[in-house]
Amino acid sequence: MKMKKILVIGAGRSAVTLIKYLLDNAKANNWFVRVADFLEDSAKQAVANHSSGKAIFFNVTDDMQRESEISDSDIVISMLPTRMHILVAKDCVRLGKNLVTASYVSKEIFALDEKAKNTGIILLNEIGLDPGIDHMSAMQVIDSIKENGGELTSFKSFCGGLVHPDFDNNPWNYKFTWNPRNVVLAGKGTAQYIKHGRYKYIPYHKLFERTEIISVLNAGEFEGYANRDSLSYRKAYGLDKIPTLLRGTLRRKGFCKSWNMFVQLGMTEDTYVVENTENMTYREFTNLFFPFNNKCTVEKKFCDYLNISVDSDEFKKAKWLGIFIDKKVGIKDATPAKILQKILEEKWSLASQDKDMIVMQHQFEYVQDGELKKLNSSLLVFGDDPRYTSMAKTVGLPVAIATKLILNGDINSVGVKIPTTKDIYSPVLKELEENGINFVEELV
Amino acid sequence: MKMKKILVIGAGRSAVTLIKYLLDNAKANNWFVRVADFLEDSAKQAVANHSSGKAIFFNVTDDMQRESEISDSDIVISMLPTRMHILVAKDCVRLGKNLVTASYVSKEIFALDEKAKNTGIILLNEIGLDPGIDHMSAMQVIDSIKENGGELTSFKSFCGGLVHPDFDNNPWNYKFTWNPRNVVLAGKGTAQYIKHGRYKYIPYHKLFERTEIISVLNAGEFEGYANRDSLSYRKAYGLDKIPTLLRGTLRRKGFCKSWNMFVQLGMTEDTYVVENTENMTYREFTNLFFPFNNKCTVEKKFCDYLNISVDSDEFKKAKWLGIFIDKKVGIKDATPAKILQKILEEKWSLASQDKDMIVMQHQFEYVQDGELKKLNSSLLVFGDDPRYTSMAKTVGLPVAIATKLILNGDINSVGVKIPTTKDIYSPVLKELEENGINFVEELV
Repeated sequence: MKMKKILVIGAGRSAVTLIKYLLDNAKANNWFVRVADFLEDSAKQAVANHSSGKAIFFNVTDDMQRESEISDSDIVISMLPTRMHILVAKDCVRLGKNLVTASYVSKEIFALDEKAKNTGIILLNEIGLDPGIDHMSAMQVIDSIKENGGELTSFKSFCGGLVHPDFDNNPWNYKFTWNPRNVVLAGKGTAQYIKHGRYKYIPYHKLFERTEIISVLNAGEFEGYANRDSLSYRKAYGLDKIPTLLRGTLRRKGFCKSWNMFVQLGMTEDTYVVENTENMTYREFTNLFFPFNNKCTVEKKFCDYLNISVDSDEFKKAKWLGIFIDKKVGIKDATPAKILQKILEEKWSLASQDKDMIVMQHQFEYVQDGELKKLNSSLLVFGDDPRYTSMAKTVGLPVAIATKLILNGDINSVGVKIPTTKDIYSPVLKELEENGINFVEELV
Repeated sequence: MKMKKILVIGAGRSAVTLIKYLLDNAKANNWFVRVADFLEDSAKQAVANHSSGKAIFFNVTDDMQRESEISDSDIVISMLPTRMHILVAKDCVRLGKNLVTASYVSKEIFALDEKAKNTGIILLNEIGLDPGIDHMSAMQVIDSIKENGGELTSFKSFCGGLVHPDFDNNPWNYKFTWNPRNVVLAGKGTAQYIKHGRYKYIPYHKLFERTEIISVLNAGEFEGYANRDSLSYRKAYGLDKIPTLLRGTLRRKGFCKSWNMFVQLGMTEDTYVVENTENMTYREFTNLFFPFNNKCTVEKKFCDYLNISVDSDEFKKAKWLGIFIDKKVGIKDATPAKILQKILEEKWSLASQDKDMIVMQHQFEYVQDGELKKLNSSLLVFGDDPRYTSMAKTVGLPVAIATKLILNGDINSVGVKIPTTKDIYSPVLKELEENGINFVEELV
């Protein structure tokens, strides 16, 4: 068996489980794994002197190096930020190398479809957690319902990255387990979905008031708010005529009502820079959003503006975060969102022993033999430790498994793909299950 | 006296008073006025066979024609949409021709400053109503206060285009007297101002709740909401350290509370296209924004969502607009804002005999000789008829007067300018007053 060379570009925290899987399975499969990162130390830490791996300094914008490294590989995995995949993808198409990413297909990537087909390679995207495991697990149930003559009338799907229950010890029941900036900006725009055949639109400032309660296995209750883009899943999942389709994000109960305070105040805005942020205190930042009134405390204005009392949970949570203290912001030319992120990071960061948790639930309603049936399919994954988080596992393992399947010739599609078809999702889900990432189905 | 050739590009409704002024004064000043428009009929209607004028078909993107027409002129007036001025401005700089516009200085225009200075020409912008008359009238008072040793502590300025009181006969006390699209999108973003030295930020979804009541001369009471960009006026007006500065828009009392319904629902959004708009009814459009509920009427959902009763003025105003009727929208791929605009245009358009009104008020507070003084300076202008509106007069006359002053050598500045300096505002305001556009000052 000829040795296969795998090039992993990007060794950040979403790549650690992925790289570990590749190295653990390298000998048995005769792989050699090169881990390339602009921060060479990240790459070195990920490879940890494994005899089947090598860490290299890598600058994705260096055309010469990029072409040379890709040329010398059998398959490429890109864990770069989404906008940078295109550089790698274009080389892969030109040089005839397969590519795997965990990111959404951009227009630029999609435009490579025909060229990739002509070259006979696959550009497999959206094979992480969300997007990724969500596609695969949903499509497995959807296809199975269709094969058994059922007709789907409703599909709702929720996912959340949260803190492990054993470490869930703050009043918000929330810690940053992923990119804090994305959490602060979550929901911006207008949420679009369809219910009983009616299109529905929720503007951002109403989003966190329109939640629903979701119960997941033995993990208790969560609240879900609608994601921006549910409608696009009709086409992706072959559900063009489904009357109800909603995708949403999960938080612990009570989170959304409290988060909504910041939305209502305008603290999550990212479109303008606040004046004089460097020398402003957290308290002064909070005070920016109230009408001028020097007869009231900032706390009183806060409560009046939001129509809450100082005894409310919401006020206590806000106060706990430190938004009324006299500490300096200390960032130049910051947007409100950036300042809020800084305040939150001081309180919501994972402590060194904290673990995280991934929660996902698909809710299907379908008619079979004239009968309405309801099926929930749920996933709970816990992090092992602060390095091998549930986020790193659920993003990285599908990427790693798909890479193996492509190298072994078990996935044969060509062109720009996402894992919504059986040939891909079936073997990937099978091996995920062997790795403890499995959905539990319940007829409701 | 040599004949001077004036080229007016754009003969739309904001240009009619401007063109009339130029033609009326052409003989006395030995002017010849060419009116250029892509719609030749608009140009012809504006010139009306006047012996000192000529209507021409004009395509601003035709480089040859643009250069040829500008070459053959002593001064150019551009009444084109803002983004198109740059084409004209570049030619003016290259060919050494003065240019006058009523639009905000864009970055591209501003970048021409040095070249214009070197060529010895003026690119005079923001000399319409708002921007224009607002700059000039405010700066005249500001300079006068400073000259008399006063120190400004507060400057607030409000302006609104409204329907003439004699034709103010709908429950909203509002009709479109200008670009309806701009009215629907007004206030988008975050309003930024400063009060008693505190920066203040109002997100869009709170803007129409934070109004203040303004009394203007004998025109009664209005409500003002903050414009987006008050802070930038500190630099423009030389008021860098002023503790309070706010610019706002005027509406009749009660308008903002009612308009806020549409903001809260998300009907003013312009960032996404609604599904199936062509065959949707107004009622179905309204229903898009509520949680699904087929046990309630759309009217009931509307009232519940906004926490108002069916007996409230707000509900009656909404119903009067027709948002609950079964009429077809009939526009393909429309945004919510576009659909709302269509609904409003059926009810808020000026009738053939209706007249409009411009209201402006500056509120100054300053300390002079140790004493705090308050001065209001207010303007009321009524339209003559549906063609010679107050909007056309207040936008067009300053442009026309400035053009005359430049041709006569009474304005000598060169480079990219706005009318915040005495050499420009003083003679323009004087002649505006002779034309019935005058501010009334009141010590409060």
